[in-house]
Amino acid sequence: MLQMIGFDGDDTLWHSEGYYQDAGKAFEAILGGYVDLADLRLHEQMLATERRNLKLFGYGAKGMTLSMVETAIALTDSRITAQDIHRIVAIGKGVLQHPVELLPGIREAVRAVAEQYHVVLITKGDLFHQEKKVEQSGLADLFRRIEIVSEKDAATYRRLFAEFGLEPAQFAMVGNSLRSDIEPVVRLGGWGVHMPYHVTWAHELENGLGDDTQRYVTADAPAAIPAAVRELAQRAAGLAA
Amino acid sequence: MLQMIGFDGDDTLWHSEGYYQDAGKAFEAILGGYVDLADLRLHEQMLATERRNLKLFGYGAKGMTLSMVETAIALTDSRITAQDIHRIVAIGKGVLQHPVELLPGIREAVRAVAEQYHVVLITKGDLFHQEKKVEQSGLADLFRRIEIVSEKDAATYRRLFAEFGLEPAQFAMVGNSLRSDIEPVVRLGGWGVHMPYHVTWAHELENGLGDDTQRYVTADAPAAIPAAVRELAQRAAGLAA
Repeated sequence: MLQMIGFDGDDTLWHSEGYYQDAGKAFEAILGGYVDLADLRLHEQMLATERRNLKLFGYGAKGMTLSMVETAIALTDSRITAQDIHRIVAIGKGVLQHPVELLPGIREAVRAVAEQYHVVLITKGDLFHQEKKVEQSGLADLFRRIEIVSEKDAATYRRLFAEFGLEPAQFAMVGNSLRSDIEPVVRLGGWGVHMPYHVTWAHELENGLGDDTQRYVTADAPAAIPAAVRELAQRAAGLAA
Repeated sequence: MLQMIGFDGDDTLWHSEGYYQDAGKAFEAILGGYVDLADLRLHEQMLATERRNLKLFGYGAKGMTLSMVETAIALTDSRITAQDIHRIVAIGKGVLQHPVELLPGIREAVRAVAEQYHVVLITKGDLFHQEKKVEQSGLADLFRRIEIVSEKDAATYRRLFAEFGLEPAQFAMVGNSLRSDIEPVVRLGGWGVHMPYHVTWAHELENGLGDDTQRYVTADAPAAIPAAVRELAQRAAGLAA
């Protein structure tokens, strides 16, 4: 039987990826003053720096900003001015300070699910930034627990299930990332509600779910989440019967 | 009765502050190529930037690095070169990558305390960096729970006590910071073992404990922690009797 529903934060409760993509565009506009952005090798170099730094910095706006500064210095052969580096830092600060804007209907959806289940928030990224977003979202009181994690993989969900005193089959995760929200939970024996967001970070697109659609359903908007959870509850009850 | 003992991470389990202070000196050496570091107004400007950015970035090496980059650009009136900014970013990366070196005797001390109490690790700072340090410390298995928090204040400890299902009087915190490890726990009705570290970040020196030494004791080295916990347990038992 389903007992607990987890919600992802970024691009599930509130808008996020758009701010990062805008930051990426503003960064490229600055770089464009020094190099030819049509050069594909530059993009490869940028992605390589980003991937290398992700291992050192983890996810989030601060690591992204440091990575942009480094990339800009490398790609311009140190020709970039301090003024332009300051503009890059300001882009990163802007991402950290963007207003928290909820997805339409998400408050009502979480509240409806919370009437029947324990709900928890499981979000990935920078601890300090995520805490501020949770606070500004006005949704904190709806959640029984708020977990900010550095990576959403099987090991993380396994640890959380142990802390919650829960079997995986009693848990469903609602989120926009198949890779982070759905696949690891389904693989452990849990359930998922996938709610795609209109833009997705390339890094979050990879997943190994294949055709296994028995353990998760798709919701096209927050208003569809409660019915999706009911559908999973019926499937779970059917398996238990 | 005492039931659970919390341990701080940085400068309690492993060395940390020294790496930050070395980073600060390396940063000033770079700045010294542009400005007169004997100018006291510069130091005021640096501290003001740091304090302002702490509110936006939170604690940790990534925020410190961004803050150093900004400070360097501001203090040199944008005269600093991209090469030198790259050196500043490298200083920050060095802090993120420093080896985890345990305080002598801390493993034995934690193990001894863990024989009689549940022990948990409560550490502050950057989630990703702290997780890596916990992993590299080799101490993770000794702890029942590992909590990485953005701020160690009364609200944080209150939330943790609720999650642990514990009264404050059943909990003692071991750490090097009176401000973060001892004062908030004692104020809530808990206990403390203060183990001073040979260097302390200015920010951690402020505290409002005054003369209230009934609720905490001092350990001058890890080997003294088990006896300090025994002393607190006796005081707690005396109050309960």
